[in-house]
Amino acid sequence: MRITLIGSGNVATHLGAALKNAGHHIVQVYSPNAHNAALLAYHIKAEPIINLKDIHADTDLFIISVKDDAIDEVAAALAVHQKPIAHTSGATALKVLLKYTEHAGVFYPLQTFSKTREVDFRQVPMCIEGAYEDLSIMLRQLAQTISNNVQYVNSDQRKILHLAAVFACNFPNYLYHASQQLLAGHGLDFNLLRPLIIETAHKVEQQLPSGMQTGPAIRHDHKTMEAHLQLLHNNELMQNIYTLLSQAIIKMDDGKHSVE
Amino acid sequence: MRITLIGSGNVATHLGAALKNAGHHIVQVYSPNAHNAALLAYHIKAEPIINLKDIHADTDLFIISVKDDAIDEVAAALAVHQKPIAHTSGATALKVLLKYTEHAGVFYPLQTFSKTREVDFRQVPMCIEGAYEDLSIMLRQLAQTISNNVQYVNSDQRKILHLAAVFACNFPNYLYHASQQLLAGHGLDFNLLRPLIIETAHKVEQQLPSGMQTGPAIRHDHKTMEAHLQLLHNNELMQNIYTLLSQAIIKMDDGKHSVE
Repeated sequence: MRITLIGSGNVATHLGAALKNAGHHIVQVYSPNAHNAALLAYHIKAEPIINLKDIHADTDLFIISVKDDAIDEVAAALAVHQKPIAHTSGATALKVLLKYTEHAGVFYPLQTFSKTREVDFRQVPMCIEGAYEDLSIMLRQLAQTISNNVQYVNSDQRKILHLAAVFACNFPNYLYHASQQLLAGHGLDFNLLRPLIIETAHKVEQQLPSGMQTGPAIRHDHKTMEAHLQLLHNNELMQNIYTLLSQAIIKMDDGKHSVE
Repeated sequence: MRITLIGSGNVATHLGAALKNAGHHIVQVYSPNAHNAALLAYHIKAEPIINLKDIHADTDLFIISVKDDAIDEVAAALAVHQKPIAHTSGATALKVLLKYTEHAGVFYPLQTFSKTREVDFRQVPMCIEGAYEDLSIMLRQLAQTISNNVQYVNSDQRKILHLAAVFACNFPNYLYHASQQLLAGHGLDFNLLRPLIIETAHKVEQQLPSGMQTGPAIRHDHKTMEAHLQLLHNNELMQNIYTLLSQAIIKMDDGKHSVE
């Protein structure tokens, strides 16, 4: 397929590379930042564009991969070409594109991307939505060229997925950071925790997290929790996080017992 | 070495198997629960014991791997044999054993264990402490027969490590659970999030978490955060967690900017 990529951030970079590697032709890459446009365009052998008016219609699909609040404006500018437009946003409903075009779709890769880290795109769940069946099928077929895990997900479901991803990815990463800061404050190396972090994630690959919960809160070990809060006496934020999440774990356990 | 194992829980089970596989002789396994004692003893070819008085002194080391608040009592009973005693607890100071014996040590595997899941023990950081140098060396050498990652860690450092492990393991697992519950409430499969969870953990294998933070909070995307809180309108606990952790991420970002 001939694909035009709008954006040059983390998602655009990884998606562009995956599409290129799958044999598609990336026609143009747009970014208002000339350096970013040139860099990504170079890697995926596309033409870099820094003005939306220089984008041409000789393409099969526009993929919009920009900040959520810029999607609306970009879609308005692209609609004139009367080609399918798909965005890659977890938090943006299809209807944002439908204001400008009937050929509206979503092409959402449910993964966390950083430019400095390779991702095996075949493992990335691709969440597809199309305004009509032929477009859904086209997007699904395209997604299958880069991923083994393609799902139809409507806008309401995608909102929930995006929210759940904050709990499953963004918040755990912050907690890794908090643990690293705690160690650094006592001259301890974060390497000591890395195997634990990896194992914690892999434990839920086959099982549900509820069966994998360990630690003082699930054991109702109030003595240890009290000692931990003492260690955090000079850090109110960490104390608040500790208390709230420990209470949540205790409640999760209560829930389990009440079901049994 | 001849080793006597006190306990039959997750840690005792994995540690016992690792020691047995490394060629050590597990002499006896003690648990007040006859079934658990028999099961673990069978797997590691040891004698199961259900009364502390049946433990004999023909061993080189007692390893106490029981609930934290039971360590004291068990140590008191074992001290009469005048053999080295090490516990495996992250949260318990060496001095708890020193009340009963001068041959006191710690043999703490910094990992999360579940009986149903295999662990590559060679990757598990083993945190060692001994009341005197010869004992430290003995415990270190023993640890090196099962792990490639052996560290001397004193009681104060170990307390911090144990607390940090709650942030790096127990709390993330709870958040995985929260995300799974959210999906389940909307008929979505947790498999959609599993690749994200694995990738989030692997991203911090080489890098610090602060550089890997993604999501609406680090982007200061208040519109998305507001929409997420709306989706959680019937779940006060999830709203509180969302708000507290998002504020923490925003604060982390502010901190970074002030350093730059």
